Amino acid sequence: MTKEDLTNCYNRIRPCIHNTPILTSNLINKLVGAELYFKCENFQKAGAYKIRGATNAIMQLSKAQQLNGVVTHSSGNFAQALSLAAKNLNIKAYIVMPSNSPLVKKNAVLEYGGKVIKCEPTIEARQAAANQVETNTKATFIHPSNNPDIIIGQGTAGMELLKEHSNLDYIFCPIGGGGLIAGTALAASYFSDHCKVIGGEPIEADDAYRSLISGKIETNVTTNTIADGLRTQLGSHNFPIIKEHVKQIIRVTETEIIEAMQLIWERMKIIIEPSSAVAFAAVLKEKELFKDQKIGVIISGGNVDVNNLPF
Amino acid sequence: MTKEDLTNCYNRIRPCIHNTPILTSNLINKLVGAELYFKCENFQKAGAYKIRGATNAIMQLSKAQQLNGVVTHSSGNFAQALSLAAKNLNIKAYIVMPSNSPLVKKNAVLEYGGKVIKCEPTIEARQAAANQVETNTKATFIHPSNNPDIIIGQGTAGMELLKEHSNLDYIFCPIGGGGLIAGTALAASYFSDHCKVIGGEPIEADDAYRSLISGKIETNVTTNTIADGLRTQLGSHNFPIIKEHVKQIIRVTETEIIEAMQLIWERMKIIIEPSSAVAFAAVLKEKELFKDQKIGVIISGGNVDVNNLPF
Repeated sequence: MTKEDLTNCYNRIRPCIHNTPILTSNLINKLVGAELYFKCENFQKAGAYKIRGATNAIMQLSKAQQLNGVVTHSSGNFAQALSLAAKNLNIKAYIVMPSNSPLVKKNAVLEYGGKVIKCEPTIEARQAAANQVETNTKATFIHPSNNPDIIIGQGTAGMELLKEHSNLDYIFCPIGGGGLIAGTALAASYFSDHCKVIGGEPIEADDAYRSLISGKIETNVTTNTIADGLRTQLGSHNFPIIKEHVKQIIRVTETEIIEAMQLIWERMKIIIEPSSAVAFAAVLKEKELFKDQKIGVIISGGNVDVNNLPF
Repeated sequence: MTKEDLTNCYNRIRPCIHNTPILTSNLINKLVGAELYFKCENFQKAGAYKIRGATNAIMQLSKAQQLNGVVTHSSGNFAQALSLAAKNLNIKAYIVMPSNSPLVKKNAVLEYGGKVIKCEPTIEARQAAANQVETNTKATFIHPSNNPDIIIGQGTAGMELLKEHSNLDYIFCPIGGGGLIAGTALAASYFSDHCKVIGGEPIEADDAYRSLISGKIETNVTTNTIADGLRTQLGSHNFPIIKEHVKQIIRVTETEIIEAMQLIWERMKIIIEPSSAVAFAAVLKEKELFKDQKIGVIISGGNVDVNNLPF
């Protein structure tokens, strides 16, 4: 994936996405002792950056493939993003959702026009149900993170950030499946000569942290984290990019995630989801290392059940 | 108060305030059937529009008065605003706060350098404590809303809104003490040839609604509303302006306030306080009357205790 691929992708998906605002806060800058630039993908369509990759992946299909629609399994932001991206491009989206998905998420998918297929809440059942849909409908399976078209699409958020603030020293990203941080790392390598990308990861789902140490993909031992978007597993397409371009992953506790989330809510008056707070929690945890630096933080999404908050 | 007074006020306070963003939401426009422009004073310094009037009122004092500082009584946003405005202008602020004020607001006052004086939660006790401070310190009393310098300062939010969107048909404002809506009504009369200002008020604190009908200032029968910023009483300086320029006040229930607040949180991913939700709740309640209109909504503030939410 070259700089030209990323630029082409951006020009392709641009009419379907928001160029989200980049916010700053004097209070938070003072607290951290650095200059922070928050790329607010919580204001993105469907409430998260995922629509970038979803839109790109659909656009890269052939006309014949598009006619048959797309299928994915997801209980979270990618389910909504693929549904909306498909609706915007006038194609069908089949979304396999585990039977224990919250009703609010299922309703959001339905609202965006996705067709929901229920399955048992196990990874095997999800994949089997998606395979079944593929066979029955000839829809193309789109993985939420482990797919080059997804990775490059997600990289456009970091690209927008660096186009506006070319002198960033660091960009902090949350890591779940690895699509966002891999795309961001590519964007940083193409649009900055010195910006380093650092990952934030919950200790409770630290497959990427351990994978970077061992040099091969490790699996999560636990996924018992409030950052529901980060419970997923690193993939074969994004890990090599992460290994090449991401120098460091900082792990944070559940308390650190919740405190970081509350700080952003109270000080910046914006709603961010726990997964987004992980990147900021990583900055806070190691703030002594980043004194006076210019730091981008990707706020990945704002889809929170406000009836069920951790504070 | 002339158009020139308002423009002079704006130029005076400009270095001390944010020109806050105006946000839109396709989803909310579709839901309402109109074009809404949210003037986001929740992103204002100290989290609410109040810093505009507070800054102006302090700036209009003589040097001798400024030396002795300022005093006010406020349960909420004006307390923070006057503290921060005073700090920015390097003078002292004494804040009389009722003992039942939200903790998050008390802490913010202290953080901004205000000196807190506690009192019983009655209007009489608040005024008595403020008088006592005035006598002891020679500080100048600044009323949160019933003061011409405050009114014109608060009008600068509507002025910014109309300068960016000169074709608005309506601006919706919450009504508490009446400073914001009076200032907004003046701004609309100076910066638009047709924009009407409409008030949103909780049924549980509907003094302005009843005052507009009777033609004289009525007092609140109850103040049992979640919109803590709107429990205060209409004043003698702002009522004549409201009577002249505000055509209508729409009253909303507590449930309507909470639902409007949750809708903005979930759809727009921004944190607004219940008092701000009242203006939007009024639009929602009577949306059939405003089909296809261009409507400004002043989101007055975002100071919420996230540990104590109504949903």
